[in-house]
Amino acid sequence: MAAEHIVTGYDQDLRRLENMITEMGGLAEAQLADAINALIKFDTEQATAIVENDKRIDALESEIDAFTINLIALRQPMADDLRVVITGLKIATNIERIGDYAKNIAKRTLTLASTPTIGGSINTIARMAGMVQNMIKDVLDAYVARDADKADAVRLRDLEVDQLYASLFRELLTYMMEDPRKIGRCTHLLFIAKNLERTGDHITSIAERIHFMVHGTMPLDERPKSDTSVYTMVGPES
Amino acid sequence: MAAEHIVTGYDQDLRRLENMITEMGGLAEAQLADAINALIKFDTEQATAIVENDKRIDALESEIDAFTINLIALRQPMADDLRVVITGLKIATNIERIGDYAKNIAKRTLTLASTPTIGGSINTIARMAGMVQNMIKDVLDAYVARDADKADAVRLRDLEVDQLYASLFRELLTYMMEDPRKIGRCTHLLFIAKNLERTGDHITSIAERIHFMVHGTMPLDERPKSDTSVYTMVGPES
Repeated sequence: MAAEHIVTGYDQDLRRLENMITEMGGLAEAQLADAINALIKFDTEQATAIVENDKRIDALESEIDAFTINLIALRQPMADDLRVVITGLKIATNIERIGDYAKNIAKRTLTLASTPTIGGSINTIARMAGMVQNMIKDVLDAYVARDADKADAVRLRDLEVDQLYASLFRELLTYMMEDPRKIGRCTHLLFIAKNLERTGDHITSIAERIHFMVHGTMPLDERPKSDTSVYTMVGPES
Repeated sequence: MAAEHIVTGYDQDLRRLENMITEMGGLAEAQLADAINALIKFDTEQATAIVENDKRIDALESEIDAFTINLIALRQPMADDLRVVITGLKIATNIERIGDYAKNIAKRTLTLASTPTIGGSINTIARMAGMVQNMIKDVLDAYVARDADKADAVRLRDLEVDQLYASLFRELLTYMMEDPRKIGRCTHLLFIAKNLERTGDHITSIAERIHFMVHGTMPLDERPKSDTSVYTMVGPES
């Protein structure tokens, strides 16, 4: 009876950790959706709220750290469970960063709201954000279901995000060269696109950690990586 | 005698974890120094080696994860030691990212090497890199010495890095507007500067984790943050 009670409490703790992580992930996902909405509508009120809300995500990471340490000290989980717990701790770090990217997009929106619109690029950015949001949803599902195959599939989708970013990089630089008055605005859009590209990288990292959680090893294949923008040189200088 | 043996083995494990983290930190620090050197000299051979060497840093993170899980499972450390171990695990994540930034600078160097030099900006970037390198050294020392005051002091120095970044942001955008042929090159330099600014953020994060490791709480004051570049709009549009 006593043993049963301990097992139940232990399972409840693991479930609680899982809930904290999915709550944190859900918040980051919502923040990102809001950030893109605020950008499209140049909604400074929403952007300001996003900057403020990020504190809740940061606080959740600290709560998860403290909870995990207590859980391990109290329950002394064995190797397999320990891998689940440690993975949760690492995933929280990735989610915290995704929250930071949403906040950064909101801050840049506050700046961009003071200048006219830019045409097509915001639509491409919104498309990129849509991809990334779906990836967050799916990777959180994979985490809860402990589904390594699903996580592996999410990981592969980052290729598309990278490709869209590389084409956006080229597009924005072309805009800048055509009209140097757009340089300030386009640079902020470039960093917003970069934030989304980095969000994709963090989702990839979460997916790899889920693979590790389930199988005890990292995915063996090199991650498909096609952010070719680092090698891009445009215009008269190239 | 048996008890003493266990304690010794346990201490050795903790020491081994500490050594792995300082080895990883030392590698990241060296990679960053090399990346800036390669950038200044447009040394494509060194830049290529840096991209390759990053795999060692990534591998060390995986080794630290696996070692930590085994250490916890085998030694079942109590709350205080557990905080030390968990902090090590989280710091490894920060160091891995710092390694990625060095790699990204090296990749952009390969692109920049094909075009003429840009004048003053590379010197400012080198100065920023110098600051960041000293901060990595000091934060690793603070980790080994478990010196929260030293870590807190490193954390405050990130303000200077942010300020230099914000002024570099403005400078590079001005160059672009004066001569649109420089847009491609300046954009890569802007991302290199951003990589260094982000490296400063990760060092700050390491410093906060050391504070947590020593005191069991995160630093209470808001981190001084002055990357004002997100609010910067330059030129005719502003």
